[in-house]
Amino acid sequence: MKAEIIAVGTEILTGQIVNTNAQFLSEKCAALGIDVYFHTAVGDNVERLLSVLEIARKRSDLVLLCGGLGPTEDDLTKQTLAQFLGRKLVIDSAAMEKLDAFFAGRPGRIRTPNNDRQAELVTGSLPLPNPTGLAVGGMLEDNGVTYVVLPGPPSELQAMFTQSLQPLLQRSGEQLYSKVLRFYGIGESQLVTMISDLIEQQTDPTIAPYAKIGEVTLRLSTKSSNKRQAMERLRTLENEILSRENLRELCYGAGEDNSLANVVLGLLEETGQTLAVAEGLTGGLLQASLTALPACTAVFAGGMVVHEPSSSRLASETGACDEPSLVVMEKMAEQIRQETGADLGLAVTGIARSDQSEKSPVGTLFVALASEAGVSSGEYFLGQRDFHTLRQIACLVALDKVRRTLLPANSK
Amino acid sequence: MKAEIIAVGTEILTGQIVNTNAQFLSEKCAALGIDVYFHTAVGDNVERLLSVLEIARKRSDLVLLCGGLGPTEDDLTKQTLAQFLGRKLVIDSAAMEKLDAFFAGRPGRIRTPNNDRQAELVTGSLPLPNPTGLAVGGMLEDNGVTYVVLPGPPSELQAMFTQSLQPLLQRSGEQLYSKVLRFYGIGESQLVTMISDLIEQQTDPTIAPYAKIGEVTLRLSTKSSNKRQAMERLRTLENEILSRENLRELCYGAGEDNSLANVVLGLLEETGQTLAVAEGLTGGLLQASLTALPACTAVFAGGMVVHEPSSSRLASETGACDEPSLVVMEKMAEQIRQETGADLGLAVTGIARSDQSEKSPVGTLFVALASEAGVSSGEYFLGQRDFHTLRQIACLVALDKVRRTLLPANSK
Repeated sequence: MKAEIIAVGTEILTGQIVNTNAQFLSEKCAALGIDVYFHTAVGDNVERLLSVLEIARKRSDLVLLCGGLGPTEDDLTKQTLAQFLGRKLVIDSAAMEKLDAFFAGRPGRIRTPNNDRQAELVTGSLPLPNPTGLAVGGMLEDNGVTYVVLPGPPSELQAMFTQSLQPLLQRSGEQLYSKVLRFYGIGESQLVTMISDLIEQQTDPTIAPYAKIGEVTLRLSTKSSNKRQAMERLRTLENEILSRENLRELCYGAGEDNSLANVVLGLLEETGQTLAVAEGLTGGLLQASLTALPACTAVFAGGMVVHEPSSSRLASETGACDEPSLVVMEKMAEQIRQETGADLGLAVTGIARSDQSEKSPVGTLFVALASEAGVSSGEYFLGQRDFHTLRQIACLVALDKVRRTLLPANSK
Repeated sequence: MKAEIIAVGTEILTGQIVNTNAQFLSEKCAALGIDVYFHTAVGDNVERLLSVLEIARKRSDLVLLCGGLGPTEDDLTKQTLAQFLGRKLVIDSAAMEKLDAFFAGRPGRIRTPNNDRQAELVTGSLPLPNPTGLAVGGMLEDNGVTYVVLPGPPSELQAMFTQSLQPLLQRSGEQLYSKVLRFYGIGESQLVTMISDLIEQQTDPTIAPYAKIGEVTLRLSTKSSNKRQAMERLRTLENEILSRENLRELCYGAGEDNSLANVVLGLLEETGQTLAVAEGLTGGLLQASLTALPACTAVFAGGMVVHEPSSSRLASETGACDEPSLVVMEKMAEQIRQETGADLGLAVTGIARSDQSEKSPVGTLFVALASEAGVSSGEYFLGQRDFHTLRQIACLVALDKVRRTLLPANSK
């Protein structure tokens, strides 16, 4: 089934809001095995929405429209779809009862006639109740194309999709299964070259590489009506990929929302150790990434952010006022470990501005990790990057050092 | 000028990433007075991208393409645009030199032939240099339609747009001028009600309210061919708005990319004071927001992140293992001030889980600010919010406390 998503709303085209509904619907469709081939956003304008519907009718089997179901004059999705299909609008009695109850319970709110628009449906639609709002959604078939109308506010759209639409779209047949492998320490083109034979001969499962700041992911996907069979196919391909050169070591984890910070917290928990952090260049970002995750509770021992003003006693005691260097970081890693009583002390900083160091160029990072056994440290050169990218990558470099230290000896 | 934005990337259609580039470009186009009428997202597929280009050619004067400039086989935007226009691809020598320099500086990275794709351009394009990446962008005109090719990673797209494309799109005629007023401590509907007469009678300048987590902005916009006249109109409206009730106090600043953190750093610099931070619930997020800004260099004195594992000596010394409370925060604010030698010590924490406190409900925040004159503190109740929202708002509550303390007495 070929699907497309049409978001209606001028506020999307002016950049006031991000079209997160398209992402939500795409993710859900992918899980249901429905291929989404196009997203479109169009303003609250009858003529342009008609032109978009005309394009969609020719290329898609399923057209998901979202937004423009509200009570105001510029909410015109249902009205325009009715015009496009040569149909009328009718009142959905259940939605009207909900409106009645809503206003009966709020004597202070004034009910204007245009509120009733929210209870209207294109003739022939199956109503989709709105569990968290007043505008009713609908689904109808016309000339072999299925049209679905959903509300714009994400909380309403998501509840309506999950409770009403998803069961209707669920096919008893094939579903899409996928697994995301996450790599740190290798570029996209290098990774792709290492498995180019697998990518070239791919049919099912498919392999889709994707690069973000500091990491690369591979999404392995297969369609099947049998979950166990699908998982087996994905596992076979995963093993084949990870058997190449040093990819098993560079693959830090799997999963859609996994992160290096999360993997490190997991390894700390497994090995029963705690971690404290002292950060310079990253200025709190590394600790914020750890404390954002529930897994930090038992294993993160806190830390410090060291900064430069000459008035700062913390900075001068730790030597942070000195030129950033491996020696300073080693000292700081051991100090934060001692101060917090943690098993591991991690220190990271780097050169972000050309006036910061006489010896090291912009893009140089210093990372040190202290444990009972001593301090291990490393210097990394990332080249010219903008400040924010440099900070993000510095977090990953430091976290990967902890990860590699915590890995069982045989898998390093 | 009628414009549309085409994002290329299968990862958008599967819902793996949100199309934030469309929002960024839309916002920038609106500021330049360019009307964006459509957004489209299409996968890494030659045939479907060709069909989308065919539709765009007929309805738009300016077609902004983003994504698909990378080194892998599925990056095909420039190749497909060349095919669509019947043109060839040529190597941009400046981009190729950049690739040479990149790999020369990284002996460990292997340069594969497909890396060179990033230096290619459609014949006749004006190259748009990529300040933060390797893939060159381009702009060309064909049969009255202007096509622009931009990279997919937001950091690269944004830098290329701002530095190279924006000056080219700027027109000498009427431009849109706008000013964004930023409010903290008031809800959107309350603010809108307080200026409802101005919103109802608006023609030019216009007023557009917008709510984000913990803050509300008002965008005042006017179109004019005369910059001074436009600025005068905006200033008159701004003064009218800020004269209402306590809005002058709640308006913490103006500007597109301004933030409460930035305003606080500015006030610290103006008053010649330094700030140190100790954070519990926010776990580094507050310090990361300060250290992300260049203005922190002279005024941020560093700080600490206090966490809970019982092994943490830091936590037990500061009392962070005790139940979060105003008394603990007051102690911590004074302690971080003393340890760092800063003029001001700020401490913040809160209750995010129901097992964390017997006395205070989830959503309670404690903020204390220590100075030479003593410690001032406050307890705030935000109600049930998800963990990440609570952390973000906690940062704003703490920063606003510092802002109000630093304001000149007559403007408080």
